[in-house]
Amino acid sequence: MRAVVMRNQGLVVDTVPEPEPDQGQVLVKTLACGICGSDLHALKHSGAQGTARNPLDEVFGMDSSRDLIMGHEFCAEIVDHGPGCQKTLPVGTRICSMPIAVGPGGVSSVGYSNDIPGGFGELMVLTEAMLLPVPNGLASEGAALTEPLAVGLHAVEKANLAAEDVPMVIGCGPVGLAVIAALKLKGAAPIIAADYSPARRRLAQTLGAEIVVDPAESSPYETWTQAATPEGGSAAPGPFPGLEPALRPAVLFECVGVPGVIQQMLAGAARGARVVVVGVCMERDAIEPLFAITKELNLQFVIAYSPDEFATTLGHIAEGRVATEALITGKVGVGGVAGAFEELANPEKHAKILVEPWRD
Amino acid sequence: MRAVVMRNQGLVVDTVPEPEPDQGQVLVKTLACGICGSDLHALKHSGAQGTARNPLDEVFGMDSSRDLIMGHEFCAEIVDHGPGCQKTLPVGTRICSMPIAVGPGGVSSVGYSNDIPGGFGELMVLTEAMLLPVPNGLASEGAALTEPLAVGLHAVEKANLAAEDVPMVIGCGPVGLAVIAALKLKGAAPIIAADYSPARRRLAQTLGAEIVVDPAESSPYETWTQAATPEGGSAAPGPFPGLEPALRPAVLFECVGVPGVIQQMLAGAARGARVVVVGVCMERDAIEPLFAITKELNLQFVIAYSPDEFATTLGHIAEGRVATEALITGKVGVGGVAGAFEELANPEKHAKILVEPWRD
Repeated sequence: MRAVVMRNQGLVVDTVPEPEPDQGQVLVKTLACGICGSDLHALKHSGAQGTARNPLDEVFGMDSSRDLIMGHEFCAEIVDHGPGCQKTLPVGTRICSMPIAVGPGGVSSVGYSNDIPGGFGELMVLTEAMLLPVPNGLASEGAALTEPLAVGLHAVEKANLAAEDVPMVIGCGPVGLAVIAALKLKGAAPIIAADYSPARRRLAQTLGAEIVVDPAESSPYETWTQAATPEGGSAAPGPFPGLEPALRPAVLFECVGVPGVIQQMLAGAARGARVVVVGVCMERDAIEPLFAITKELNLQFVIAYSPDEFATTLGHIAEGRVATEALITGKVGVGGVAGAFEELANPEKHAKILVEPWRD
Repeated sequence: MRAVVMRNQGLVVDTVPEPEPDQGQVLVKTLACGICGSDLHALKHSGAQGTARNPLDEVFGMDSSRDLIMGHEFCAEIVDHGPGCQKTLPVGTRICSMPIAVGPGGVSSVGYSNDIPGGFGELMVLTEAMLLPVPNGLASEGAALTEPLAVGLHAVEKANLAAEDVPMVIGCGPVGLAVIAALKLKGAAPIIAADYSPARRRLAQTLGAEIVVDPAESSPYETWTQAATPEGGSAAPGPFPGLEPALRPAVLFECVGVPGVIQQMLAGAARGARVVVVGVCMERDAIEPLFAITKELNLQFVIAYSPDEFATTLGHIAEGRVATEALITGKVGVGGVAGAFEELANPEKHAKILVEPWRD
């Protein structure tokens, strides 16, 4: 089959052996598969021979110096059932799945494994028990956004939002936009979002942000304070005279994932703020704990989603509750993947590019 | 009056003007006042003329390059009432108070203010409305431990412990010991505590730790894992086959407050652990967010206590529920304070030294 292979720190189109479904697995044809920021990271740090380690190697147990077919945000179609399958979903059914393949040999990540291909190839093997049929005739493009949007849903679930909380999302790339979509679904208001890119701020509004901030123009934290000041102009007095007024509680989402952003948030956050770290910073980072201590901040680090959250997200998309069409800014066949990785560096041009390996 | 003055990066005994109680304030005689780790910090970083900032200056609004009388862990006796007082507590009453003086000019910290003296002087001014009479004939030495023990109570309250949680305290200085005492009062079990010092580990046991670990001998995190493995030898399987077994939830208390410890805890903590940062690290620190992200750790930074927590702590001490006598390892008059600051560097010799400014 044809696939985009990560090899020698680059992406090449090659013909590779078709995967074979093991006990309880199905063979599927990839219909659409999104390119994730983590994929860009993995490529950037791949192929390092002992000099700079690739943090993803540790997380996923992969070896980025060997051939690897990435792609973990997919919609696919059942082509064949392996041995021991229930066959509840017939061949031809379009499905989504968490990117995990459970087989007799253990658990493999789909998209960061050297042993099985991810969605940047024509065929994959998945676990039958994890398949979710695409409902409502939802287009495969929208269904492929289940995985990245589930990341946002999970982050918002871990935030345990209360009605009085005022959320702010720092960074409006695909992760931040997924958080905004999940906040909107939860009924949080107002939703504040900050990004340097005008295009990303427009997308943030499309997904549900009421207030957007360009950090180059004004402080997101000042904007937050205005939004969190209770109605009536002057805020209620705080517990001690002379100290800051009572504001609605802050729940801030870190969706950038580069060094320095967490400390910026510790410095800018209001007293008692909860900071949910959704962005995946893979480098060493510096913080000044005193900022967090004196304001009694809480940092909740999150990753991925539960099976329930994944299924719930697919349901939301199928019911048309998320503006998925705005998120998809490009589609490529396998021949266009390397170029798409480069184009994704430009936040004005792209949010999510889908790979359709059957094209070209 | 006589007082220990922080001046020119040292501690000197001097005669200073007596403070005068303002509207709603009382004049008190200091009976006993503990030396806190923050006091050592403040002295170490004091007097810096523009080169190295003292972080405490920012926190407390003090100017450590000017004269300052420290001391915020005190028991005192009412000497006189200022104008506008209710006089509910008569002259001669022994009292404790949160180290905050509220006057017409605003709120001042007692112990880190250039304008009013702290407990390392013979007399202080306090806010009448904040005074708590020492109950049950409790000795002044024990009552003086209310402030540091309230820090531990607050940290444990912020941890929202559940019955299945297994707490571990990293660092058994006065802050860690206060956390252990509060965990014991909450009924948490087993309580695990780690410190390099044999004397500190013995104190941890006296205060209520069931399991103590010398990190030079074995990993506190391995000890924690053993303690958190459910009864019956082999642990129950986790949510995914092949992944780690289900352990009781981890609540780890950072009570060291020096750079590097938070990252050690992020690396060592079990999946889903809550880390309560009680130690006050005043320097820049380095973390690797990926450790926290992949394990979905939660960091709760805490400081100080509420008025209720302060009063509750005094009640616990008065009822004999905390082994306060073990914590007090020395007493000095004003002439002995400078030496006591140096002696406190030795964890084998001291936990808490009390200053009795009326002595010598």
